[in-house]
Amino acid sequence: MQSAELSKASTIYPQQRFLHTSFHAGSFWARWRHVAYNSTIPAQLSMLKRTGRYRAFDLQWQEYYTAPKKVWPVPEHFAWDSDIGKFVEGVCYFLHEHPNPELRAEVDYLVDLVINAQQPDGYLGIHYTVVEPGKRWTNIRDMHELYNMGHLMEAAVAHKQLTGQDKFVRCILRLVDHLCSVFGREEGKLQGYCGHPEIELALLRLFNATGETKCLDLAEFFLTERGQENGRFYTEEQAHRGEHPQVQPDMFLKPRSYWYMSAQQPIVDTETIEGHAVRALYLYVAAADLGTTPLSTKHKDITDSAWRLWRNMSTAKTAVTGGVGSIYQTEGFALNYQLFNSVDEGGSYNETCASIAQLMLADRLQLVHGLEAIKIGDVAERVLYNSSVTTGMSLDGSAFTYENPVASCEGFPGKRHQWFDVCCCPPNVLRTLGILGGYMWSPLANGERGIAIHHPFAGDIEHRDLRVSMETDYPFNGAIRLRICGSGSVKIRIPGWACEAKLPEKPGADGYLTLAAGTHRVDFAIRPRLIYSHPYTRDDHLTLAVGPLVYCLEDVDNPFEKFHFKHLTIHESILDHLEPMLSPDGVTFYRAAGQGRQMLLPSSEELTLTELEHDVQLSEERLDLVFIPYYYRANRAGGHGQYRVGLKRRHIY
Amino acid sequence: MQSAELSKASTIYPQQRFLHTSFHAGSFWARWRHVAYNSTIPAQLSMLKRTGRYRAFDLQWQEYYTAPKKVWPVPEHFAWDSDIGKFVEGVCYFLHEHPNPELRAEVDYLVDLVINAQQPDGYLGIHYTVVEPGKRWTNIRDMHELYNMGHLMEAAVAHKQLTGQDKFVRCILRLVDHLCSVFGREEGKLQGYCGHPEIELALLRLFNATGETKCLDLAEFFLTERGQENGRFYTEEQAHRGEHPQVQPDMFLKPRSYWYMSAQQPIVDTETIEGHAVRALYLYVAAADLGTTPLSTKHKDITDSAWRLWRNMSTAKTAVTGGVGSIYQTEGFALNYQLFNSVDEGGSYNETCASIAQLMLADRLQLVHGLEAIKIGDVAERVLYNSSVTTGMSLDGSAFTYENPVASCEGFPGKRHQWFDVCCCPPNVLRTLGILGGYMWSPLANGERGIAIHHPFAGDIEHRDLRVSMETDYPFNGAIRLRICGSGSVKIRIPGWACEAKLPEKPGADGYLTLAAGTHRVDFAIRPRLIYSHPYTRDDHLTLAVGPLVYCLEDVDNPFEKFHFKHLTIHESILDHLEPMLSPDGVTFYRAAGQGRQMLLPSSEELTLTELEHDVQLSEERLDLVFIPYYYRANRAGGHGQYRVGLKRRHIY
Repeated sequence: MQSAELSKASTIYPQQRFLHTSFHAGSFWARWRHVAYNSTIPAQLSMLKRTGRYRAFDLQWQEYYTAPKKVWPVPEHFAWDSDIGKFVEGVCYFLHEHPNPELRAEVDYLVDLVINAQQPDGYLGIHYTVVEPGKRWTNIRDMHELYNMGHLMEAAVAHKQLTGQDKFVRCILRLVDHLCSVFGREEGKLQGYCGHPEIELALLRLFNATGETKCLDLAEFFLTERGQENGRFYTEEQAHRGEHPQVQPDMFLKPRSYWYMSAQQPIVDTETIEGHAVRALYLYVAAADLGTTPLSTKHKDITDSAWRLWRNMSTAKTAVTGGVGSIYQTEGFALNYQLFNSVDEGGSYNETCASIAQLMLADRLQLVHGLEAIKIGDVAERVLYNSSVTTGMSLDGSAFTYENPVASCEGFPGKRHQWFDVCCCPPNVLRTLGILGGYMWSPLANGERGIAIHHPFAGDIEHRDLRVSMETDYPFNGAIRLRICGSGSVKIRIPGWACEAKLPEKPGADGYLTLAAGTHRVDFAIRPRLIYSHPYTRDDHLTLAVGPLVYCLEDVDNPFEKFHFKHLTIHESILDHLEPMLSPDGVTFYRAAGQGRQMLLPSSEELTLTELEHDVQLSEERLDLVFIPYYYRANRAGGHGQYRVGLKRRHIY
Repeated sequence: MQSAELSKASTIYPQQRFLHTSFHAGSFWARWRHVAYNSTIPAQLSMLKRTGRYRAFDLQWQEYYTAPKKVWPVPEHFAWDSDIGKFVEGVCYFLHEHPNPELRAEVDYLVDLVINAQQPDGYLGIHYTVVEPGKRWTNIRDMHELYNMGHLMEAAVAHKQLTGQDKFVRCILRLVDHLCSVFGREEGKLQGYCGHPEIELALLRLFNATGETKCLDLAEFFLTERGQENGRFYTEEQAHRGEHPQVQPDMFLKPRSYWYMSAQQPIVDTETIEGHAVRALYLYVAAADLGTTPLSTKHKDITDSAWRLWRNMSTAKTAVTGGVGSIYQTEGFALNYQLFNSVDEGGSYNETCASIAQLMLADRLQLVHGLEAIKIGDVAERVLYNSSVTTGMSLDGSAFTYENPVASCEGFPGKRHQWFDVCCCPPNVLRTLGILGGYMWSPLANGERGIAIHHPFAGDIEHRDLRVSMETDYPFNGAIRLRICGSGSVKIRIPGWACEAKLPEKPGADGYLTLAAGTHRVDFAIRPRLIYSHPYTRDDHLTLAVGPLVYCLEDVDNPFEKFHFKHLTIHESILDHLEPMLSPDGVTFYRAAGQGRQMLLPSSEELTLTELEHDVQLSEERLDLVFIPYYYRANRAGGHGQYRVGLKRRHIY
């Protein structure tokens, strides 16, 4: 296979489709991408330089390498390789649209540094070359060695796609050769897999970009080996290090709790999604990928597992914002329906990277299952607009969130940060915005000609001889004007919430409306609605949503609040009292005059037990409320970072 | 001080007061004690014999000692000493009322075995004498060495009280001499404290029984040393064992999480009650005890801490049944208001021993604070009738619970067991029922003459020249006839829920009614009421309570149920529809005809996200419900162990 051709022609990956997608200037997503290019890239480049990462592949000693470990056993720099990888990858995507020679030079510099860091035997990695040479592959459970390489693989594919140059991919293929000599079921090889999945999906991208079957074979090995005999590999690896069996990393809740990294059992036997959310999701992205990868037809059970675990996650483990992962210590999933609102309730971690991984998995599953699985797009939409790129980055592109609780609490106000010690999220947001167009649509599955638009946007799609142009103010307005030229079907997803959509005809059973060439108007009829808590979550909350956006209250607009809106109640009839207000930057807020009443709770001095002897009393005072999109929080001066999404439901007006 | 005199005259401890208390035959508590004496004692004796414990103090090798460890690093037999100690202690209490020579011979045999097991230097303990000689005091964090000794101390005090013989107490005082040579702040001594508190409260009992100030000094040392420098002792102890700092016991959630055993900071600095519930409570019992112990006046800050932590527990960490400790892995407290209903919601451990410890702490605090702290009795009552002795033992005295979730769930049905591998709860119930009368009242504090009755019962109290006789069917009926002879005040607690009590006069600000000699009738006017969830718990539940009893539904009486009553709703107006029904054994059940409606929840196939798009629908069908006291569950044939206390509140009828 001619890999360059394959890569250009194919639209299997959003990393390919984004090249066929453009956003109209000034539109919702164009503004996010504009900010990412103009602010985020320079800001992150400057942080990479300030923190030692930028030059780390020169393999010189840095003072950072001896910093005390905050999370045993990993040193602070353990994932630097991946930070460089994701940044290079992200910048490459933006350089397609903005051929900026200065920025291109930075990419070339970093790529050459990486290539030159490759060891004679093909090994590539900072820590085990500079800090602990001779200790390679002694702790793949914790040290992210293969994870880092996976991100370099993704960067190499992006670099080749941008430049047409083979050098980085060739370096990476030498690395794959090396990995094949280290890992496998043959005598003398390591029968192991990385504690943090990533290399599996990267190897499949590399296979699809190069046609090198060794990449597929190695990915299949990692995916089928994982979790065998309850993760025995890690137990033995620990023994080989000479560690007592009860020695445990800080992230584990118990010794040998390999469910933390989805390695407690093989993928095909796993019934519920557990542990560290990003690890689980990257793993299942690769599992789903096997279903769309040519030459890989023998793993339907693995691909089916990805779907099963997606369903478990979406229906039982997803916050109303789309975020996933309640537990702080594991950055991971809790029990089914165990969704807390805030840190003081038990956790509401909802890592930005986890939601980015949800977008990746939704995309893979849509390709595998076609549009039969009609609800994928509804979930992906929730994530796209509320818990991933918009929430993870400030409006000005300079600050980020790692965790995204659905409510603040004492000690955990809403806040954004320029950088993090372990800095996975910021470059992940960058690279996702880079390929954003690719997530908006995909080619129809099963050989059908045409495309499915999962998320409407103001912009254009070109696919083979199809041209689709959309005019819309989505997500604030549900009216969309589509102009379609060329042959093939264009399907557009009608969101589950759009019950009153004005459509030229009824959508199909798959939830998509099929349109032919010509000009069409559809209107999703966006209006405020309320989302109700699933009773198993124990909350009785009402959440305001408008179209794809979930709304919250923030104390910037509601300065009366002192208890993080934990005492505030609203009644269902609030829907009759909402008035839209346009913010200076064109975002729709909603005002609800006199619709809030505070619960009057006894002080702990008045309590005898953790209960009330009488029904909760409510304030007579009726408070004016202003709702803003959840992603919009922690972006303005004023307030003390108090915010909340779901509000206690009041059953009397 | 003449210790025997001191012990007999004093009424500081419930272990002394019970001798001045008697229950009328056939009354509520007399029946429990009757069952305990006639069934529980022989059943437990038989289990002690079958499991190797009975003869363990003969210091011969047993096959059990090599059993694989289920919870690292403790072997299964690590607390056998305490099982013997608590059993002997409990039987001694019952022998006062029932001088049974055969049973007395068992006690004498066991006590002699213990005394003979004492080593020449005073050391006393099975494991480090038989299994790992030479390794004493190498792991006091995990191995319960001092905990076991504490229970032997309590047994020795009880034995002397029964028999007047000094031999066991003398043996224990030699042990204390040995401990004083091992522990202390002097050069060369261990500056440590036991992972499981118990010895502190036992030493204080021993001091009060013997007047030996070395016991007080050692208790003060343990109580003031605990938690210094964030539990540095345990970190150093681990290093001395040659263990890697990340080696951790299975019960910890993280390496060095010494909050598990309330050793993360000194008692006086601790603001919230954390970790293993029994450990925390035994510790704070001793802390409170310092406030009533003669010669110990310099630790008001520690006694105050016990009160502060009691308040935190009762107002923010106590289940509606009175149970404490949500988390299974730690058998311990969760965050404030983090109270789950069942294992599938995150845990609802509520260990029987923890509630027994709540009774102990309530008793100590009542003595320290007098009756100023008016709500202690209300909390203790909830615990006494719902989460401790009545719930922890079957009606026939032969089976026990360790955990007491407030609702069952799949995989965790309501169930009782004959025995447990780690068998702390059954003998703890036994010894608590043995001294039960002592918890019902206490002498007035601050030198005032008279007594305070905390819990009414059918029976008699004699205190100095006061004689109080009560006739009542409490807890099923709130009418109480009191006959008081002699001089001094008799105060009786008017429960917080008894708003409509018929009383001869108003109770004082302390919540107690003061009565003089003569005959009095009071009626607490017991009628069904509803308890409301604290909104911070996130539940919106209604719990039926009648007098001191909390009620539940069990599928034995409600055979329609298939979802552990998780979908069942009730409306506040259920109070107008309750009809009492007498069970064959004289317990009041309540029937509510047509008051239940099931929520009709979408299946997970119908869900898109973990939320509902519309308000919950309710069944049209109106179900008849039968409520039983919570303690009564899991006592009858039929059903599948499904039960629930708090039911989802329905806001429309």
